[in-house]
Amino acid sequence: MTKTDPGNFFEDFSIGQVLEHATPRTVTEGDRALYQALYPTRFAVPSSAEFAASVGLSPAPVEELVAFHIAFGKTVPDVSLNAVANLGYAECRFHRPVVPGDTLRTSSEVIGLKQNSNGRTGVVYVRSTATNQRGEVVIDWARWVMVHKRDAAAPAPETVVPDLASAVAADELVLPEGLDFTGYDVGAAGEPHRFDDYEIGETIDHVDGVTLTDPEHMLATRLWQNTAKVHFSTDARPDGSRLVYGGHIISMARALSFNGLANAQLIAAINAGAHVAPAFAGDTVYAWSEVLDKAETPAPGVGALRLRLVATKGRDETTTLRGDDGKYRDGVLLDLDYWALVPR
Amino acid sequence: MTKTDPGNFFEDFSIGQVLEHATPRTVTEGDRALYQALYPTRFAVPSSAEFAASVGLSPAPVEELVAFHIAFGKTVPDVSLNAVANLGYAECRFHRPVVPGDTLRTSSEVIGLKQNSNGRTGVVYVRSTATNQRGEVVIDWARWVMVHKRDAAAPAPETVVPDLASAVAADELVLPEGLDFTGYDVGAAGEPHRFDDYEIGETIDHVDGVTLTDPEHMLATRLWQNTAKVHFSTDARPDGSRLVYGGHIISMARALSFNGLANAQLIAAINAGAHVAPAFAGDTVYAWSEVLDKAETPAPGVGALRLRLVATKGRDETTTLRGDDGKYRDGVLLDLDYWALVPR
Amino acid sequence: MTKTDPGNFFEDFSIGQVLEHATPRTVTEGDRALYQALYPTRFAVPSSAEFAASVGLSPAPVEELVAFHIAFGKTVPDVSLNAVANLGYAECRFHRPVVPGDTLRTSSEVIGLKQNSNGRTGVVYVRSTATNQRGEVVIDWARWVMVHKRDAAAPAPETVVPDLASAVAADELVLPEGLDFTGYDVGAAGEPHRFDDYEIGETIDHVDGVTLTDPEHMLATRLWQNTAKVHFSTDARPDGSRLVYGGHIISMARALSFNGLANAQLIAAINAGAHVAPAFAGDTVYAWSEVLDKAETPAPGVGALRLRLVATKGRDETTTLRGDDGKYRDGVLLDLDYWALVPR
Repeated sequence: MTKTDPGNFFEDFSIGQVLEHATPRTVTEGDRALYQALYPTRFAVPSSAEFAASVGLSPAPVEELVAFHIAFGKTVPDVSLNAVANLGYAECRFHRPVVPGDTLRTSSEVIGLKQNSNGRTGVVYVRSTATNQRGEVVIDWARWVMVHKRDAAAPAPETVVPDLASAVAADELVLPEGLDFTGYDVGAAGEPHRFDDYEIGETIDHVDGVTLTDPEHMLATRLWQNTAKVHFSTDARPDGSRLVYGGHIISMARALSFNGLANAQLIAAINAGAHVAPAFAGDTVYAWSEVLDKAETPAPGVGALRLRLVATKGRDETTTLRGDDGKYRDGVLLDLDYWALVPR
Repeated sequence: MTKTDPGNFFEDFSIGQVLEHATPRTVTEGDRALYQALYPTRFAVPSSAEFAASVGLSPAPVEELVAFHIAFGKTVPDVSLNAVANLGYAECRFHRPVVPGDTLRTSSEVIGLKQNSNGRTGVVYVRSTATNQRGEVVIDWARWVMVHKRDAAAPAPETVVPDLASAVAADELVLPEGLDFTGYDVGAAGEPHRFDDYEIGETIDHVDGVTLTDPEHMLATRLWQNTAKVHFSTDARPDGSRLVYGGHIISMARALSFNGLANAQLIAAINAGAHVAPAFAGDTVYAWSEVLDKAETPAPGVGALRLRLVATKGRDETTTLRGDDGKYRDGVLLDLDYWALVPR
Repeated sequence: MTKTDPGNFFEDFSIGQVLEHATPRTVTEGDRALYQALYPTRFAVPSSAEFAASVGLSPAPVEELVAFHIAFGKTVPDVSLNAVANLGYAECRFHRPVVPGDTLRTSSEVIGLKQNSNGRTGVVYVRSTATNQRGEVVIDWARWVMVHKRDAAAPAPETVVPDLASAVAADELVLPEGLDFTGYDVGAAGEPHRFDDYEIGETIDHVDGVTLTDPEHMLATRLWQNTAKVHFSTDARPDGSRLVYGGHIISMARALSFNGLANAQLIAAINAGAHVAPAFAGDTVYAWSEVLDKAETPAPGVGALRLRLVATKGRDETTTLRGDDGKYRDGVLLDLDYWALVPR
């Protein structure tokens, strides 16, 4: 009998099943520093205890993506160790800031199952919830992945496809308690652009690029305790390359978006996300954004921008997502749809 | 007169000599985060302040190997700067947890000397002791290294070879004060296997592999303030490669062993260790373990497993240590014998 | 209208102009740990809370260069995003230690302007001041950079070249409040050499070398939120190489200088600095120092050494700065002139 964990296969999942994921993890100031070393982030709230306090957040939270990657990483051994592909995210909401000292754990409920027609794989839909040491919800999100069957002959489950919102509605965004942008210091934050300066449909080329390296994405991925072997071993893929964790691209693009979106301080929700193409060491990642929607919020001085964040391999000054055929253009790595909180 | 430190040569050591090693070092939460980034570790005690508290340890200790590498690194400038080879470890005991804020310093006593027949090198045996800022012993261990003579003509010292135990006896293990596994949460820890589930002679292939890179082992080795130049400079070896610090392989293998030994939470002792072959960037490290012995302990709910942890270059699903000739098989990098504490 | 920041060009600067740089940043224990991982530093004050307290500094400050790189990084987007070259530093003084929890911000005043005869570039002189969350000055320094003009036809400003001291006078050094080296423990610090053991004109070859890698210098440069694209993108230079941030070389050389200058615990001032040649991954960095001057200080047991710190590509045991032609020798990367505080 082996003692190692082979992960779950498609037929191991059932509707309503709840997976309590292992290894709770305490967030520290070390995570903040490593995040700063790994990504070119300069957002003022996570960078400065003083700035964070000036907008009602003290102690300063770590970036939402630090919490997301940790919470997400917990689900990998149970949900996606045998995944063929991460197909999508939806309905991801950040319920409260995470600060050093908080301990995160994650559980997931199976909310959908659909065997593929080839009989060898199926799609698993889970809703995952990360909580802190007080049992408060920190993040929740839906995700669907294509998973191998252990045995192609195993019977197909009844198909259940959950009804997931195409975007979190603006009035369902959760705002950090105490958040107040009325005294927001645009000079300290780095750019003058406020809520009213952004228009729906506007695109922003974030200009700067970062060339990926293997050691860096491996450091990042391990930091989140994400153990999927394709990221770490040259033995795991036929071509000997190490696949960059998709979350590394999300964080890189988000950090690059500072140049033009320095005041998109906080992520309130992720509406959808697609890892369009794999990324590898040597690729130079650029980003551009599109303003998809705008909304007011009840928090003082706080507006919400719905943004499309696109990461590309090589710079795309045209900020074009799809070709004439409707397919993603060559070079697109990531298409992420999220809500950010900005000063009005 | 040069002001730089040439390190000690064989004839600089004498029996009973005590070396007070330099640069005390304070452990921080930054060390914990970097350790998580450098190794795929998920053990629940060092990962989670909540989990650690639930087993009687608060604040959460850093991994024993963090403390070991720091304590060991202090000895390098005085003991092994001119070493030809690290020959072995013995009688290493972890006396108390190390937590962020603790400051470690190390001293070593020379307990053995044996000049080699070639007259150009000799073996130095030291017993090293790391203490914290309260003067409490944190770790002690014996180690022997082969060191160059400065002058081959220098007379050989009287040969003294210390009598070192082949393993720390189970009743000599030091258990962390307050450790109590009676409420141990196997779900949070990641695997169901407890003390009774492991049998002497059982081997476990830990499945996963990690490909080494130069930047990562250099970051790790510097973090422990280990300055041996073969790890850092392409000028130090004829082939221009940078030798990976042996402790990097120990930590990598220990972290990989989570998959099958997730409940081997704490290291209580290291009985023996051999760096069988050098490792370099590009090598993919795998690990397997063998259960060598089992013992009860006086701490509530706590058992001890004596484990052989073997790191290999390339996966060895056969978990075979030696060939028919009695020699280590090709690909074996590390053979480490240690005691781990597990829930009963 | 683009929302991204194109940086300032030569004609955007005017004498007396004050630039308040963005993104204040809180220093953490994570920064200390990353600095230890990135550079082979072993200076006892930043390494050990106990040692630091024993010389009157508690909590233990981070290395002066951590604070300097952070403070300097803030100026890049406003001062040197369009720089052709960093030409020099002067009059840099460290006014007080920086400890974890301190939040740094930087402002710069334009103190000089000189258009080059080619009409396409000009030299901008700024005096930058970093302050902490209490508004206390932490570091100030002068710096001059050659910056592109946006429009070669723009009129030249009146030439103003500030009068900058060739070195900070010894009696203008600021000593950390409470600093007291009378109980200084040379054994813990790692070397016996005190103030009186160093002679003006003496040179010290620091022996050890470190080979640079791209991931490491990128991690470092991002940690300081320095976003100059030549450090990060293989698209930024015609040859596809990533230029190593000059501060990375300063920190590497300073850390290497431990071997021979272990008691040069604190940097009190930087008198001048020249990045003589660019450095790239694969270069092996060595360092040597020359004692330029010595001075007493009013702090108990504290002397000051004025040191030239030279980083070279490849080891230069001859410690020779310039050739017969008066030019820097091939292989010199950095020529830094600073004051260090040492025990008497």
